[in-house]
Amino acid sequence: MRIAIDAMGGDYAPEEVVGGAIKAAEVLDADITVVGDPDAMAPFIGQGHPRLEIEPARDVIEMGESPRKALRGREDSSVSRAVAMVADGRAQAVVSAGNSGAFMALSALRLGTIKGISRPAIAVTFPTPYGHQVILDAGANADCRPEFLRDFALMGSVYAEKTLGISPPRVGLMSIGEEKGKGNELTKAAYELLEDTDLNFLGNVEGTDLLSDTCDVIVCDGFVGNVILKACERAAQSLLAQIGKEVKRSWVLRLMPGPLRASLKRAVAGFDYSEAGGALLLGVNGVSIVCHGRSDADAICSAAEFAHRAVENQLVEHLASVFANLDEVEA
Amino acid sequence: MRIAIDAMGGDYAPEEVVGGAIKAAEVLDADITVVGDPDAMAPFIGQGHPRLEIEPARDVIEMGESPRKALRGREDSSVSRAVAMVADGRAQAVVSAGNSGAFMALSALRLGTIKGISRPAIAVTFPTPYGHQVILDAGANADCRPEFLRDFALMGSVYAEKTLGISPPRVGLMSIGEEKGKGNELTKAAYELLEDTDLNFLGNVEGTDLLSDTCDVIVCDGFVGNVILKACERAAQSLLAQIGKEVKRSWVLRLMPGPLRASLKRAVAGFDYSEAGGALLLGVNGVSIVCHGRSDADAICSAAEFAHRAVENQLVEHLASVFANLDEVEA
Repeated sequence: MRIAIDAMGGDYAPEEVVGGAIKAAEVLDADITVVGDPDAMAPFIGQGHPRLEIEPARDVIEMGESPRKALRGREDSSVSRAVAMVADGRAQAVVSAGNSGAFMALSALRLGTIKGISRPAIAVTFPTPYGHQVILDAGANADCRPEFLRDFALMGSVYAEKTLGISPPRVGLMSIGEEKGKGNELTKAAYELLEDTDLNFLGNVEGTDLLSDTCDVIVCDGFVGNVILKACERAAQSLLAQIGKEVKRSWVLRLMPGPLRASLKRAVAGFDYSEAGGALLLGVNGVSIVCHGRSDADAICSAAEFAHRAVENQLVEHLASVFANLDEVEA
Repeated sequence: MRIAIDAMGGDYAPEEVVGGAIKAAEVLDADITVVGDPDAMAPFIGQGHPRLEIEPARDVIEMGESPRKALRGREDSSVSRAVAMVADGRAQAVVSAGNSGAFMALSALRLGTIKGISRPAIAVTFPTPYGHQVILDAGANADCRPEFLRDFALMGSVYAEKTLGISPPRVGLMSIGEEKGKGNELTKAAYELLEDTDLNFLGNVEGTDLLSDTCDVIVCDGFVGNVILKACERAAQSLLAQIGKEVKRSWVLRLMPGPLRASLKRAVAGFDYSEAGGALLLGVNGVSIVCHGRSDADAICSAAEFAHRAVENQLVEHLASVFANLDEVEA
């Protein structure tokens, strides 16, 4: 197994990305390729690692660039070459902390969508006190048709079962009321489609089911998913800031800010999905892991571990087989 | 000014609601009417208050009942009689912690929509470290057309200016990217309409702008608003639970759980919108305040204060005037 890592993507590239790649080469039973400018990477590679290779790429797609521009005439960019390694069969997974729009567009274009899947979706995995919870789509599809949501549910369920080991995953449809008739036109139509699947479909769930033990996979359109995740991140930050202020007011607590700060830091880490290894672009012909722009070496290493697990558990093959069988049933 | 309070609605009705109504009669320069079963209220009214009156109503619409059922043949329910007091001009505002769907449907039906406004919307006001932030629609309209969002923006702006004293309020459109072209079909079309208003329109905002100082009014459809608010409430609860666990692990902090608990409780209070006086149904011909089902006496009193401020600042009159002028300009 080989994992391609876009060494030039991310706020702390190439230093932290290369650092994370070396860590991954040390801890994983996988070959790692760092893709990028060899001169820029050299100071951070040091003695390197027997399982670490370099794939040269001279161009970089910057964070602010339009994803569309990345699709043509930028074949020598680090992210494009990293995705191409999977498309060419030279690697089985690709990891990038760079321009996520460009990375996803390139992944969809170069790797292609698995047969039978209407649209790829971004799946975010939260660690919860009860295990893991998956939410998708987290932003790839702003406007969805009901059958997209059904496919997201199928993909999320296969991923939760085959990669996270949850069996059978409980699937909920994000809505604004638990009863079947509640929701908007999209979710009401998707509800009907989901009832006709073999999924362990619980029906509607609400915002309060996030991070709870009520379901394992939450399905929504990419607009809703993106807004939820960003709002929750902000709510957590805001609450911590507020607690910080309250703590300063308390003379007792002021005496021991050290342990408290450490506690708070551990507590909030669970809200940052980059800590959990990044988001997964589900539905493309390959394992494609989207990391947060501010990923450090540990986050990159986690993402490589996540990629390793998905490849080892044959996630793409399982998805292809489930959707191929659906096609046969429907034909 | 008279404020009608549905004494039978809410998890702690009538005891806490009546308690809150008496508090409101004590602190506000307003007459208060508690609407409900006089026998059920009697034990909690005690000696009453010179400015507190009772309006009898023998029926109660329970939390689980379908809002549609509340609209016919339930004229003797406490919430129906309380809304009727505003419709008849006997009160200027109505407060209920009962079945919110029934309360909103009754308010829209009996009070009517202000001329020129496409749909009433629920506005939730968050206290932030910088003042207040308003988000609407928080759940009244699951499916929206672009002109609904424009009207929400106009209503939210009038409310923020006339009742919260923010001038001129900065209005943001909730989306999934700051650039104009980002979003779904609804928000892209709404963006065009918002650019043509006289509002202080900032353009798109994101989930991370929630509770921040970047804008004062955030506009979204009722599906997105409802999901965001519930998800943030859950994220805050989950973070607190996590912090609680971390604190238990720390021997230093274990020695002083009292002050820490108090700090955390103060910090999370800001996330519960019932603490801020409840949500406002904007766009109907009257002041209608929707409280959380688990409102206690303090929350009911806050809601009455909120209602008092909205009436005193002539919110409904200002809305009517703004939308009447729009009609003239468009005609």
